[in-house]
Amino acid sequence: MFCPGKTPEQVVAILARLARHHTNVIATRAGADVATAVAAAGLPHAYHADARLVIVRPERGEGVGLIVVAAAGTADLPVAEEAALVAETLGNRVERVYDCGVAGLHRLLEHYDLLADANAIVAVAGMEGALPSVIGGLVDRPVIAVPTSVGYGASFGGIAALLAMLNSCAPGVSVVNIDNGYGAAHQASQINHLVAKIR
Amino acid sequence: MFCPGKTPEQVVAILARLARHHTNVIATRAGADVATAVAAAGLPHAYHADARLVIVRPERGEGVGLIVVAAAGTADLPVAEEAALVAETLGNRVERVYDCGVAGLHRLLEHYDLLADANAIVAVAGMEGALPSVIGGLVDRPVIAVPTSVGYGASFGGIAALLAMLNSCAPGVSVVNIDNGYGAAHQASQINHLVAKIR
Amino acid sequence: MFCPGKTPEQVVAILARLARHHTNVIATRAGADVATAVAAAGLPHAYHADARLVIVRPERGEGVGLIVVAAAGTADLPVAEEAALVAETLGNRVERVYDCGVAGLHRLLEHYDLLADANAIVAVAGMEGALPSVIGGLVDRPVIAVPTSVGYGASFGGIAALLAMLNSCAPGVSVVNIDNGYGAAHQASQINHLVAKIR
Amino acid sequence: MFCPGKTPEQVVAILARLARHHTNVIATRAGADVATAVAAAGLPHAYHADARLVIVRPERGEGVGLIVVAAAGTADLPVAEEAALVAETLGNRVERVYDCGVAGLHRLLEHYDLLADANAIVAVAGMEGALPSVIGGLVDRPVIAVPTSVGYGASFGGIAALLAMLNSCAPGVSVVNIDNGYGAAHQASQINHLVAKIR
Amino acid sequence: MFCPGKTPEQVVAILARLARHHTNVIATRAGADVATAVAAAGLPHAYHADARLVIVRPERGEGVGLIVVAAAGTADLPVAEEAALVAETLGNRVERVYDCGVAGLHRLLEHYDLLADANAIVAVAGMEGALPSVIGGLVDRPVIAVPTSVGYGASFGGIAALLAMLNSCAPGVSVVNIDNGYGAAHQASQINHLVAKIR
Amino acid sequence: MFCPGKTPEQVVAILARLARHHTNVIATRAGADVATAVAAAGLPHAYHADARLVIVRPERGEGVGLIVVAAAGTADLPVAEEAALVAETLGNRVERVYDCGVAGLHRLLEHYDLLADANAIVAVAGMEGALPSVIGGLVDRPVIAVPTSVGYGASFGGIAALLAMLNSCAPGVSVVNIDNGYGAAHQASQINHLVAKIR
Amino acid sequence: MFCPGKTPEQVVAILARLARHHTNVIATRAGADVATAVAAAGLPHAYHADARLVIVRPERGEGVGLIVVAAAGTADLPVAEEAALVAETLGNRVERVYDCGVAGLHRLLEHYDLLADANAIVAVAGMEGALPSVIGGLVDRPVIAVPTSVGYGASFGGIAALLAMLNSCAPGVSVVNIDNGYGAAHQASQINHLVAKIR
Amino acid sequence: MFCPGKTPEQVVAILARLARHHTNVIATRAGADVATAVAAAGLPHAYHADARLVIVRPERGEGVGLIVVAAAGTADLPVAEEAALVAETLGNRVERVYDCGVAGLHRLLEHYDLLADANAIVAVAGMEGALPSVIGGLVDRPVIAVPTSVGYGASFGGIAALLAMLNSCAPGVSVVNIDNGYGAAHQASQINHLVAKIR
Repeated sequence: MFCPGKTPEQVVAILARLARHHTNVIATRAGADVATAVAAAGLPHAYHADARLVIVRPERGEGVGLIVVAAAGTADLPVAEEAALVAETLGNRVERVYDCGVAGLHRLLEHYDLLADANAIVAVAGMEGALPSVIGGLVDRPVIAVPTSVGYGASFGGIAALLAMLNSCAPGVSVVNIDNGYGAAHQASQINHLVAKIR
Repeated sequence: MFCPGKTPEQVVAILARLARHHTNVIATRAGADVATAVAAAGLPHAYHADARLVIVRPERGEGVGLIVVAAAGTADLPVAEEAALVAETLGNRVERVYDCGVAGLHRLLEHYDLLADANAIVAVAGMEGALPSVIGGLVDRPVIAVPTSVGYGASFGGIAALLAMLNSCAPGVSVVNIDNGYGAAHQASQINHLVAKIR
Repeated sequence: MFCPGKTPEQVVAILARLARHHTNVIATRAGADVATAVAAAGLPHAYHADARLVIVRPERGEGVGLIVVAAAGTADLPVAEEAALVAETLGNRVERVYDCGVAGLHRLLEHYDLLADANAIVAVAGMEGALPSVIGGLVDRPVIAVPTSVGYGASFGGIAALLAMLNSCAPGVSVVNIDNGYGAAHQASQINHLVAKIR
Repeated sequence: MFCPGKTPEQVVAILARLARHHTNVIATRAGADVATAVAAAGLPHAYHADARLVIVRPERGEGVGLIVVAAAGTADLPVAEEAALVAETLGNRVERVYDCGVAGLHRLLEHYDLLADANAIVAVAGMEGALPSVIGGLVDRPVIAVPTSVGYGASFGGIAALLAMLNSCAPGVSVVNIDNGYGAAHQASQINHLVAKIR
Repeated sequence: MFCPGKTPEQVVAILARLARHHTNVIATRAGADVATAVAAAGLPHAYHADARLVIVRPERGEGVGLIVVAAAGTADLPVAEEAALVAETLGNRVERVYDCGVAGLHRLLEHYDLLADANAIVAVAGMEGALPSVIGGLVDRPVIAVPTSVGYGASFGGIAALLAMLNSCAPGVSVVNIDNGYGAAHQASQINHLVAKIR
Repeated sequence: MFCPGKTPEQVVAILARLARHHTNVIATRAGADVATAVAAAGLPHAYHADARLVIVRPERGEGVGLIVVAAAGTADLPVAEEAALVAETLGNRVERVYDCGVAGLHRLLEHYDLLADANAIVAVAGMEGALPSVIGGLVDRPVIAVPTSVGYGASFGGIAALLAMLNSCAPGVSVVNIDNGYGAAHQASQINHLVAKIR
Repeated sequence: MFCPGKTPEQVVAILARLARHHTNVIATRAGADVATAVAAAGLPHAYHADARLVIVRPERGEGVGLIVVAAAGTADLPVAEEAALVAETLGNRVERVYDCGVAGLHRLLEHYDLLADANAIVAVAGMEGALPSVIGGLVDRPVIAVPTSVGYGASFGGIAALLAMLNSCAPGVSVVNIDNGYGAAHQASQINHLVAKIR
Repeated sequence: MFCPGKTPEQVVAILARLARHHTNVIATRAGADVATAVAAAGLPHAYHADARLVIVRPERGEGVGLIVVAAAGTADLPVAEEAALVAETLGNRVERVYDCGVAGLHRLLEHYDLLADANAIVAVAGMEGALPSVIGGLVDRPVIAVPTSVGYGASFGGIAALLAMLNSCAPGVSVVNIDNGYGAAHQASQINHLVAKIR
């Protein structure tokens, strides 16, 4: 569930209803006010402030397969953590490869083996958004690119990164909405489970 | 290889070089002039005019797994066929589900079982671009959305469909560039092979 | 009357002037400050906080004919309610069909008979804005589409939904400004009254 | 059926199939090549070159009710005629009010009675697109606005007119895609038939 | 002087320097904080809160010639008053014609004689921005159009009105920046003085 | 009359009708085909190929007052000549100041006296569109800026110049549509005649 | 380091780590809260509030060569000062040429000799962004243009200035992101050091 | 001189005039028609069809210093060659590093020493435009980025690459207009000559 545009009361009501029948109910873009309301309502939950996630009735087993979440810069971490935590919550093994923007390629190259081993890669970047292209050129694995709104001026709130990712010269790169860590994790999980469950 | 911006001679030269070591070398957006030049150069090839594809040293075995290519309207078929033929060339079993725009939902619903069985779905649509959302809401499989430049006026050459797809209310939908059937097929093939090769 | 850009005092002055000769004077996008000022001025009124409407000298009879207001998601409700309440205030019978986004088509299909019976349908949706196309494909009734600013990133404050609606592959769909529930209700009322008054 | 993006052969095939069971099958944006192909195929048809319409198995009775098609300038006539002819084909009585741009208001005011009598008004304009606002301010009837791509420079192929119409200060105005005379006529016909058939 | 982007201290310093040698020094977009700082500095001045103007060492004689400032709606008045007060300060006779949007043409037509007598007309409008076209069609006088940021959704902060004005079908209309009442008044004053001083 | 969007036959018909009662009937953006059709119809006319103007029943007296038309580069000359010839046809004295882009300021400064003497200045520029700002900073006369579509890449067909002109830091600059030499000349003529006729 | 999008704590942590091995560690767009946090952490530093810069372990020697930083208006000074202070911190001699917009060319021309002597010129301007073109036309030195977000309406947060600079009719002008004083200073310093170190 | 927008005759006239006093007069974007006209006029010249350059009175000495021109793909070569040939014509030593897009990083890394030795680097790329960021991260030399119009769909004629370059996460990158190889070469030459002439 996406929180913005709903009151904390509406969020709590929806979460409580869903949690009657489900564990691991996820609310994204949850501010402190939402977390407080969830706590006040007595719902068992975990709150990840950095990733702006509330997970109600959290329950996590051993993750299967492998998803790598790669991020370019410090300011991209909220979105990257949203993706990583959602993927873990959905039952996937997740490895994080952070702080590897294209202006410092060696940090990325160090993680080659991990990337080549993933069933799906979530690549998170703002500004010029070049990380997914570079990863897509390195390894033959599906890359789900997440542009972030990190940047200023001609970044236009993430449009520059979004366009760069849509125009990737590496094949095997698809793109989700700006800052949509949840969506990327969801699709990566679909792929990873298709692969992992039959091993 | 993407043909536009290169002369037929450049295209032929690159194809000939690649074909020395590879079968199934693919040239996309190939016009009749490119096909003629390839033929004149004596390269063994197949030309698919509708999909604007030249495939040099074509060689096709039994396709593995399952990719479904769904398309909304007649005018979307060149892009859909580009995706379907590329996916077949890359060794995947492909099923086509065409002419199922959201204004005629029943035609889509008839193919529910096929969609639910796919390892990856390529959903091709222009105009309001709603097809991927509807498919993503029906089945829990990775959907790779391809906006097409089909439309006029406020379609802005495919921007309307692109934005709609990026804002899909169904999770599990990622997007490639406008008219990029090749890229969608490439990623769908990556996913399908990860799943299929281990069965 | 559209409140933003006017001070509460200006709003009250205009409402008071209009209310001398009219009942059911409507102020849209009215915040709590406007409602407070209207109350302080002693104007008889109803305040609908969710729909951000103040109605001065409210007076409602039996509504004629039938307008259906359909909405895709929870976050679209303020706009949908603005449309529904305005339509009721203008003397129309209104039925609400909420929470029926295209990712959950079955909820929409359950209301087929109601939709097919309407003289006009107001279809409210944000994000990918596909609801009006789907409704327009289901029933042969005039659909007035209202894009909402619900969404983030590449939704661009409702542009994605607006463009999708303008490019609807179903005929019989026309569009009003983003979040303009009032305008859609006004036109739906014009249509419904033309039909209903002569029965 | 919308012709662009389809070959004349594809258009003829679709028209022939539809004409087996229907009269008055309409193809929009039909160039001379399409008309020639339809004639060569021996399909009974009418071709309206100005409106770029082919109508197969044309059959027209007495039109019911009243739709007014108003247009601002000479260059808007192809779109206006598309709307008027489609509306007539769909069985409506149509009156044309042409050449009444907002820079010459008196020509519009002369037609006040006709406008006030319409069940629906299709208002066609390019450039600054002000005609629908003026008509919406004059009469209390549903106005369906059609922006045209007439203009240059900052008209941006009809965007200026489209935005103006979406921001109309007159209520009761809804908008269709740029140059979409067909869509406006279709909705106007829906409205007019709802009103007229019960008289 | 344009205040935004400068601190009240910077504004006061610049005004004080200019006021040593000039009367009628104008600061536009001046908030209450600027007015307070100007007063605290002991500068003789007038503050027009509605028009967000501070005029230091104000001195006004008989205005020459005639400039008409026309405005479409209540929300456009801050910009219209900026234009009117600046024009008066610059020594012009100014007549105001307010609340005459194109949805209520008769209010505009009542002022025909005044408009036809002006040496320059400043036409202020937001939303669909049609007022300058209508005035330019009525009288053969230079019209300087000022789009305002009044509106919402697809008004895009005044872009819709700006584009409409640039595409005016009436000749004799030129345009200044969004909300730039000052600039329009300045040019109108240049024109009016060229005419008036030689009478 | 603006020719694009009309057939040569339509243009000739309109011109012939207007020429019955008027001299100096102007058709803008007239290609060679239009000129040929006008000649074939036996209408007395002048054709200015560079400015793409046909003037039917041309009749030119002594021009009154002074309008200066300034242009930045060679590629801007068609628009500048459109403005200059229209202004002359409307009975104004016109002086041309060409080839004075802001990268070569000295050429502009040489014409200071002429600029300072004008009743109105039409400033034509593409690319970065800085010429009107520089002229507006030099002389206290009304400047009507005409952005041209000259440029490439991020010029976006004249948008860069248009935006620059709307944001001029010099007051006294207003703007017309891209390439609209006619409109600028029309307004300059209105101003010049108001001044000149009373001398 | 670019501060926005990071908490003051994150900023301090990164600065402290970098300052272990480096002097002159620069944090840009630093608000008062960052400066306070840096002070509270006991890091030796200088805070330049106008330029929004924190420099940790500041150490400045004699600057080499010559960089000129030119700015158009008062509101551009924060960006210009960011550029100038960064350039000084990086070991360059810097001269400031401020308040020389193109509407007052004489102030710029007074500094001709200084501009002609620079190894690199940083030209900062908002609004119509014409300053770099004028400087590039005056002297044969590399000009790095910085558009600023100064302006309103059709300035679109600096886009107008950005586009103008990209379309400069003077060669020798390159452009950095909106408000990116740091980036311009960095490149100017690269150039200046290449020249200066070998003298 | 930039050819588009000028007739071959105008181009020849300007070139002939300039060539009276200068050698190495450069005409960019010159098509075969321009080259033919230059030859017919008997002007001594070289024509580089790939780079679309005509150089009149070509005269080339030993190039000084070092400029590296790097390009991402085959389709970027016309722009890259324009830059390289212009730089050579202006008296610089130029090394070409072609076919090194970010999806094949190893080809770029092989040229590290050459890049690190350059006084200026011109980096040419279309599509996602990531090359300048990667180079700027590798070496501490001024990088002048040239976005190209290579791409399709959401490349928007080079806007995607342009935005990516403006948002480069590597400092030391500045940008010129789309496809503006000439401008980049001009500035690179300014820098290289400042460095080289004093060695």
